[in-house]
Amino acid sequence: MTLKLDPWGHFAIESYEKLFSQFGIQPIDNNILSMLPQKHRFFSRKIIFGHRDFDKWLKAYKNGEKVAVLTGLMPSGHVHLGHLMVFEELRFYQEIGVHVSVAIADAEAYAVRRIPRKKLMEYAREYIMYAYAIGLDPKKTRIYFQTNSDTPYYRLIQMFSRKVSMAEMEAIYGELEPSKIVAAFTQVADILHLQLPEYGGYKWVLVPVGADQDPHLRLTRDIADRFENELGLKRPASTYHKFIRGLDGNKMSSSKPEYAIFLSDDEETIRSKVMKALTGGRATAEEQRKYGGEPWKCTVYDLYMYYLFEKEEDLETLYRDCLKGLILCGEDKRRAAKMLIEMIKEIQEKAREFKDVIEDYVEFPRF
Amino acid sequence: MTLKLDPWGHFAIESYEKLFSQFGIQPIDNNILSMLPQKHRFFSRKIIFGHRDFDKWLKAYKNGEKVAVLTGLMPSGHVHLGHLMVFEELRFYQEIGVHVSVAIADAEAYAVRRIPRKKLMEYAREYIMYAYAIGLDPKKTRIYFQTNSDTPYYRLIQMFSRKVSMAEMEAIYGELEPSKIVAAFTQVADILHLQLPEYGGYKWVLVPVGADQDPHLRLTRDIADRFENELGLKRPASTYHKFIRGLDGNKMSSSKPEYAIFLSDDEETIRSKVMKALTGGRATAEEQRKYGGEPWKCTVYDLYMYYLFEKEEDLETLYRDCLKGLILCGEDKRRAAKMLIEMIKEIQEKAREFKDVIEDYVEFPRF
Repeated sequence: MTLKLDPWGHFAIESYEKLFSQFGIQPIDNNILSMLPQKHRFFSRKIIFGHRDFDKWLKAYKNGEKVAVLTGLMPSGHVHLGHLMVFEELRFYQEIGVHVSVAIADAEAYAVRRIPRKKLMEYAREYIMYAYAIGLDPKKTRIYFQTNSDTPYYRLIQMFSRKVSMAEMEAIYGELEPSKIVAAFTQVADILHLQLPEYGGYKWVLVPVGADQDPHLRLTRDIADRFENELGLKRPASTYHKFIRGLDGNKMSSSKPEYAIFLSDDEETIRSKVMKALTGGRATAEEQRKYGGEPWKCTVYDLYMYYLFEKEEDLETLYRDCLKGLILCGEDKRRAAKMLIEMIKEIQEKAREFKDVIEDYVEFPRF
Repeated sequence: MTLKLDPWGHFAIESYEKLFSQFGIQPIDNNILSMLPQKHRFFSRKIIFGHRDFDKWLKAYKNGEKVAVLTGLMPSGHVHLGHLMVFEELRFYQEIGVHVSVAIADAEAYAVRRIPRKKLMEYAREYIMYAYAIGLDPKKTRIYFQTNSDTPYYRLIQMFSRKVSMAEMEAIYGELEPSKIVAAFTQVADILHLQLPEYGGYKWVLVPVGADQDPHLRLTRDIADRFENELGLKRPASTYHKFIRGLDGNKMSSSKPEYAIFLSDDEETIRSKVMKALTGGRATAEEQRKYGGEPWKCTVYDLYMYYLFEKEEDLETLYRDCLKGLILCGEDKRRAAKMLIEMIKEIQEKAREFKDVIEDYVEFPRF
């Protein structure tokens, strides 16, 4: 079983493999890894596992061209460890000197997810606060609301609708509603507007997203092609990350708060959630010592892999010890809880510094 | 035959009658006429023949409330006598002190009518020039491009999409394309955005349009109702005008230039077009003297009714003389051509004054 040799969790990519074969997403391979100007565990562990044109983007970066990174945040619930990953990715690019833009997808949250505008603005405030706390520089990071952008951005939405048919959109999104159609073009405008001179003329834009966002990227690439002559638009590059699992083994989501770790959780809540997490342990301690654990099933292992262990050796050791039955779930969970609490406490302290200055940096919509 | 008693062309309303019965459009009746602060032949001749809530709007006007008029112009061809009617309506309201806004429907012209952006901006320039020439005050008239508006306007488009279903839109517009959906919400934003404090907070907005635009008004009224609580939106009022016929008896359109009178036509072109116009005349002069003409069939009569005769007596006399066979088509056409040439020459002279200052008053989109 090859899984045993794979402490970086490549196994979980298998479910993503049709993305490679069916949609032409490229794997993050050694060539890409060698082009990265700086290492990051997300890449080495294949948490960021696939891409489109990332090699071209990295080359443009190396050649000193104007490069930018843009991603979207949907303010649809409290910030949890899944979002933290996105913030950290953005920080990575900002640290290597790339321009960073963040679209708050409030139009989509309102129109498609039907979150009241007041509520979503509260969520957005929380997102921004933690983004700063994770280390995104408020002065260098452009954060804007979809409904609070300006004229050329919206002109793109108006123009894009001309060159896409209903059949194409249905093929991508399934059953359509007017809100979905408007939201889709809005996302395309998010991704492409940085190329306009009004927004800096960044022709090399990288979009780091979860694998589920690829349909938007495909639509965006098609639209960029169709407006190549008229507006000089280029295809964006994109990278795809896996999702950290919730403590029940499914995708972490604010809709199942008991299985998500929120950045706003207090010490006791975090400890209690981690202690109840689904692991790859056996029915009894005895069996576990005998047969070993199954770390690829373990949501606590995910915590280590995504966040708690920076060093590859530490993760490798844990993986082997678990496989061999040298470590039991109880002690492993206690250590994870302790480390996680420390990490989150530090973030919360930083967040407090930014709580009241968010509006100095980001303009909120009036309504 | 009641038509004989109807020199104001009420007959032509018959084809609009299902608008009254099926869609609840109200006729322009004596009550409305008595509420008008000033007379206008468009009303007395029932060229403007129907309305929704115009009575409420007129009452608000009378009570000194903030009232506004907004209409849209689609820059899809050269300006002809059909557009002139809209300009004159707007001037009427501006003269009685009403705020006037004009949306240049460039988003729709581009996305739905597929007119290249450069071309439509040329058309728009022509529209604006003639609007000023007809007497709209450049300083008092707010003219904006749909793709050149700003944030709160576009936020409305984003928000509106939430509360309309695909089925509803199909019932109104038939087969849908993404461009039609975006265009529809854009029109709704045109009509409703004046109510926002950002645009003056005009809660009483009147939309004078051709009868074919009522579907947009119905959608807009439904959306206003659905956002009454959230955004404090009120239903707009609207009036509906008939279309001046082209010289072939069908709707005047720039797509059939030989049957349309353009404001840019020269003297010889106008004369030649009028002389070839479809009339209600008989096969021979002899028959016409014997049986009389049929002015309701006559496109030259339309010219008199819509534009050339200000006085009701003049129109009435012409109608009777024609019916009685006292006037023949040739002389009638010559007179119409002469009067029309004079009228259009005057407009063209005024237009020249505005040709080079349009951009002092209206901001054009960069792309």
